[in-house]
Amino acid sequence: MTPTSSPSPAAKPFVALAIAGYDPSSGAGITADLQAFHAHGLFATTAITALTVQSTLGVAAVEPVSGDLLRRTLEHLQNDLPPDGIKIGMLGSAEIVSTVAEFLRSIAPRTTSKPPIPIVLDTVLISSSGTRLLAPQALQTLREDLLPLVGWATPNWHELALLSGQAVTSMPQGQSAATALMSTYPTLNLIVTGGDQDPPTDLLCLADGTLQTLYGEHIESRSTHGTGCAFSTAFLSNLIFKKTPLDAAKSAKHYVAEAIRRAPPIGHGKGPLNLLWPLHEIR
Amino acid sequence: MTPTSSPSPAAKPFVALAIAGYDPSSGAGITADLQAFHAHGLFATTAITALTVQSTLGVAAVEPVSGDLLRRTLEHLQNDLPPDGIKIGMLGSAEIVSTVAEFLRSIAPRTTSKPPIPIVLDTVLISSSGTRLLAPQALQTLREDLLPLVGWATPNWHELALLSGQAVTSMPQGQSAATALMSTYPTLNLIVTGGDQDPPTDLLCLADGTLQTLYGEHIESRSTHGTGCAFSTAFLSNLIFKKTPLDAAKSAKHYVAEAIRRAPPIGHGKGPLNLLWPLHEIR
Repeated sequence: MTPTSSPSPAAKPFVALAIAGYDPSSGAGITADLQAFHAHGLFATTAITALTVQSTLGVAAVEPVSGDLLRRTLEHLQNDLPPDGIKIGMLGSAEIVSTVAEFLRSIAPRTTSKPPIPIVLDTVLISSSGTRLLAPQALQTLREDLLPLVGWATPNWHELALLSGQAVTSMPQGQSAATALMSTYPTLNLIVTGGDQDPPTDLLCLADGTLQTLYGEHIESRSTHGTGCAFSTAFLSNLIFKKTPLDAAKSAKHYVAEAIRRAPPIGHGKGPLNLLWPLHEIR
Repeated sequence: MTPTSSPSPAAKPFVALAIAGYDPSSGAGITADLQAFHAHGLFATTAITALTVQSTLGVAAVEPVSGDLLRRTLEHLQNDLPPDGIKIGMLGSAEIVSTVAEFLRSIAPRTTSKPPIPIVLDTVLISSSGTRLLAPQALQTLREDLLPLVGWATPNWHELALLSGQAVTSMPQGQSAATALMSTYPTLNLIVTGGDQDPPTDLLCLADGTLQTLYGEHIESRSTHGTGCAFSTAFLSNLIFKKTPLDAAKSAKHYVAEAIRRAPPIGHGKGPLNLLWPLHEIR
């Protein structure tokens, strides 16, 4: 820790809010989101939807937070530290989905139905270790109540299949399912993420009809815990800094790939990424 | 975000564990601890004792986590990512104090009563905004069950008075109360913190009888949310890196002072520090 010679007060930073589950092992969810926001130079606030018992070995337990506590947390943060962008991750229950939707409606101007800041919904349905992270009955609430309020969603193939009701086992099927989903939500933009496919190709689908394929390189690694969380949070960070959607997605993809490459060799299962790599190598 | 040219996997990092309350506004508790650990280059895991609704305007609500969930979290982390040091902050209830004490006993070798890693107890009793953060009946449990298991405690004057049963309104009284407390706990080391006094003088009291005064400079600032959390976490980080107690305390004091000086101008009350300053200026 070396003191620098000319301390200067920081300028007013952008504030990013993550609404997500809590991972005590800092691999996924809020503890990963915080690192990703910090790596991008944002001040981050957070609202927990559910506590988990979790490590690199998987999710051992999930305990939802009450809708009332989440509502009070969101209102309290909004009054003091209003965000410049919001990332939504694991939601868990229909009650939590409704609470988040209600909060988004409360910060939307009367003239439009959506809040005037970028909102990225990472449609977390099942953990990479196989634990269900959204109750089955909550999927309908998410579709009806929450999806119309967000500008962006980042489903993987499996999640896109559940959201669209169409099979997705190939890129053409993914494109078809994305088009079908976006016809229901005319102002929604999508990134169909292929981070769990080989090769990890993403599909950027804008509400104006633009489609763009984002190619990635497969990285052989056991450190893949929370890659989806890191991608959506990095993407939102880039949108907050006014990057174009294409640049924001490309940059987020690069950020996650490097975070996998530089991951620390810890834990006995799917290890965490090195989410702070733009700032330093962890020792 | 600039790609660096030669990505190299990170070396195996030290792991630090924070057991503390959760502040959604990233000023105090676990969200501050995470930043302080990251600033020191550690991989951090966390176990939440209580959720709070909190911002720069103060603590609006506290909701304890069940002792059972905390116990499972600590056991799960220990099995996969055993820590090289532990920081303990807000505990809230007697049940939580007992759960943490039980965990510490479980990781202590049979030959000694204390775990073989540095453990720093930040004796959080009341928030800087005046909210009680440890139930009155839990203070006795903390004294009997937990204090004998930790190597370090970092009380401020008020907390030292409650722990020792002696009035502390001056440095000589602080020294006398510290000596009295340490006579009850012969292997306990103390830092009596004066961060909330002017001048902010700390007193380092080692179990071997050494006393050392640490002078600091008063910094006029409204950004003082979570200074105690940041100090104890920085101090533990330095102990994990094998600094001497004196160097660890001096370095932690410098870290906090700079974090106050470089604090971002956000929020309407006691603002957060710039806890990541060793890594970068937040934008």
